[in-house]
Amino acid sequence: LVRPGSTDEVAAVVRACGAAGVPVVPQGGNTGLVGGSVPASGGAGFSGAFPVVVSMTRMTAMEPVDVLAGQVTVQAGVRLVDLQRHARDAGWEYGVDLAARDSATVGGTIATNAGGIHVVLRGMTRAQVMGIEAVLPDGSVISHLAGLPKDNTGFDLAGLLCGSEGTLGVITAARLRLWPVLPATTVALVGVASLDAAIAVMQDHRGGRAPLVAAEVFDDQCLELAVSVSGTGWPLRHRYPWLVLLEVADGGDGSGLVLDGLDDVVIGLDRTDRERLWAYRERLSEGFATSGVVHRFDVSIPHQAMEGCVAQIRTVLGSVGSVTRVGVFGHIADTNLHVLVVGPDADDMSVDRMVLEVVAQYGGSISAEHGIGRAKADALQLSRSAAEIAAMRAIKDAWDPQGLMNPGVIFA
Amino acid sequence: LVRPGSTDEVAAVVRACGAAGVPVVPQGGNTGLVGGSVPASGGAGFSGAFPVVVSMTRMTAMEPVDVLAGQVTVQAGVRLVDLQRHARDAGWEYGVDLAARDSATVGGTIATNAGGIHVVLRGMTRAQVMGIEAVLPDGSVISHLAGLPKDNTGFDLAGLLCGSEGTLGVITAARLRLWPVLPATTVALVGVASLDAAIAVMQDHRGGRAPLVAAEVFDDQCLELAVSVSGTGWPLRHRYPWLVLLEVADGGDGSGLVLDGLDDVVIGLDRTDRERLWAYRERLSEGFATSGVVHRFDVSIPHQAMEGCVAQIRTVLGSVGSVTRVGVFGHIADTNLHVLVVGPDADDMSVDRMVLEVVAQYGGSISAEHGIGRAKADALQLSRSAAEIAAMRAIKDAWDPQGLMNPGVIFA
Repeated sequence: LVRPGSTDEVAAVVRACGAAGVPVVPQGGNTGLVGGSVPASGGAGFSGAFPVVVSMTRMTAMEPVDVLAGQVTVQAGVRLVDLQRHARDAGWEYGVDLAARDSATVGGTIATNAGGIHVVLRGMTRAQVMGIEAVLPDGSVISHLAGLPKDNTGFDLAGLLCGSEGTLGVITAARLRLWPVLPATTVALVGVASLDAAIAVMQDHRGGRAPLVAAEVFDDQCLELAVSVSGTGWPLRHRYPWLVLLEVADGGDGSGLVLDGLDDVVIGLDRTDRERLWAYRERLSEGFATSGVVHRFDVSIPHQAMEGCVAQIRTVLGSVGSVTRVGVFGHIADTNLHVLVVGPDADDMSVDRMVLEVVAQYGGSISAEHGIGRAKADALQLSRSAAEIAAMRAIKDAWDPQGLMNPGVIFA
Repeated sequence: LVRPGSTDEVAAVVRACGAAGVPVVPQGGNTGLVGGSVPASGGAGFSGAFPVVVSMTRMTAMEPVDVLAGQVTVQAGVRLVDLQRHARDAGWEYGVDLAARDSATVGGTIATNAGGIHVVLRGMTRAQVMGIEAVLPDGSVISHLAGLPKDNTGFDLAGLLCGSEGTLGVITAARLRLWPVLPATTVALVGVASLDAAIAVMQDHRGGRAPLVAAEVFDDQCLELAVSVSGTGWPLRHRYPWLVLLEVADGGDGSGLVLDGLDDVVIGLDRTDRERLWAYRERLSEGFATSGVVHRFDVSIPHQAMEGCVAQIRTVLGSVGSVTRVGVFGHIADTNLHVLVVGPDADDMSVDRMVLEVVAQYGGSISAEHGIGRAKADALQLSRSAAEIAAMRAIKDAWDPQGLMNPGVIFA
């Protein structure tokens, strides 16, 4: 493990590893869920030598916010929570937020094109990256941090590195877009009978009176477990197959909500009530963790196929004897669902494969926001054609002919 | 010249050209300003054989708008104006608009990552591309058109092809993001004393009460020529070094304007007045064309350097005896200025080089929205480091080892 303190030191490490034929595994906060920053000896991609982990956690410098541009340049090791605070202190907001904010680094979130709860409003991490600095596998440093909103000078290297999961280089710094602070928000929890109804409720709020900040969905099973770990009462009068949690930036007076015809709704106008409603969404994962080993999936499913696909996933999982519990939640505006499965052993990947195959049949993506990493490398062909994978590999091989930069990740 | 009618036909042409060692030049509406779709025999990149132009103008199919996703899939040969109309007929808007809308094709605007007047609100073309279909230099077809908002399955091939100016393949279709139709707009024309003041007026409207749809700037010289060709009167009471044209989606009642302290302002509330004000911006280019051969520049300059950089450009051009007229206009929110120079012969590229070198000195980009094409290929190193160009070239060489796909473009 090396912990470089500068871009030059990162470059020196990458060059030294190249000369010695030793693999390099870039690592940020190590909060990824697909093993993309986990060193492995042996196995796919490793040719014997144990890799050097390049931890970026010492590179935590942040420039002052550029208020004219609405941008900021930070080093890759900055934690997401510190970037968020830095932006807020200057009267701006960073566009990405996710549960691992206290540990995840900017570099890691860029390398994985992290999503999170504000994608509906701000887009993925790639949409925030206005410039990048990185050490490529040959040890060369590319630095393009001016952050010009229009800059058509050749290929989009920043966009390519974003989402490459450390296979094309070590990201050392980035120029990031910031956003004006939004008005206060209102939160609503709504019970609905189907995923299609959940999608319709979300659609009523998109492009509407007030910016839609978040649109989360979770099923009755998730709510039951969240209620159980929170020790609170049931939030609605009745039980519903699906719950939708909406947050709109309407000044906090509820004027941004469009809830005609929905009679079982809880609205949170002040901070306490907003946080109370969010807690159901945020604690459901903890609820599942109390009931055993959890297999977690992160998939995208087109809206029009979502209802049928989820039904089929449940049918398939229902046929597996070891499965004791299934929960579905996600970011409904982004077509991104997470499936939680309790029962099968941690090492039993057969349910994982079954779920991903159903998703692919319905035209979905096997990775929405977590990436491919090592965990899904052998399933990449479910979402990408041979021609696409060959085109990706050609880039990887051209930049990293020795195959030393995060081997085993993305490409099996 | 071939005019394929399907993706398979494009692939067959690319494979045949590869087998024969003949260069391929993809062409859309041929409205680019840097020669990126212009075939050239001989010169940089051509090894003797005259290229085959692959015109995409027969591939004009459009799927119905997917109202659930807010997306549409269209073939590359669709003209921008037809896509805009198609979206509007379904109650949506496409995010990109530019003067060449009647001829420019979707494929061409993607290949060049076109900008235009709505970048402040919607981003560049790359931000609209949710999926892509393309024929790569080896004749393979990649097709990823599901348009899932979250889809972290390997490298961002769509983003890479967008802006590659036909050097990495022929774009045949795209899945494009659409936007909800905005409220009616108000237009204001404001006279200001400096570029810094123009930036401040723009900033007052960004992230404000109403979405800022456009923020254009032009100098007194541009206004004079626009007034001259329009045959209208001077729009303001006085003359100013700079004019700012703002358009805000405030419902058309002017409530979105923040013009405290500015006393010489014309506001257009109804359609006629809005178009009358826009005409000054839209006809300035025509005004310049009446005064001789025009050298046109498309550059980005960081906001904080803009005032100084433009002054330096004017100083440098003032020292060139043949220069008779200089005008500056552009998209002020996007740091994107266009410089118009009249006087030097069309073939005299010395002023072009002088301007681009000044821009690079001030940390700007030599191409904001037009691309590199053939015209700026030998100036790419003013905006990109050797390491960056090497990284780009490695991708180009990996995908196109014969160097037959739009040779001479981007890379000199």
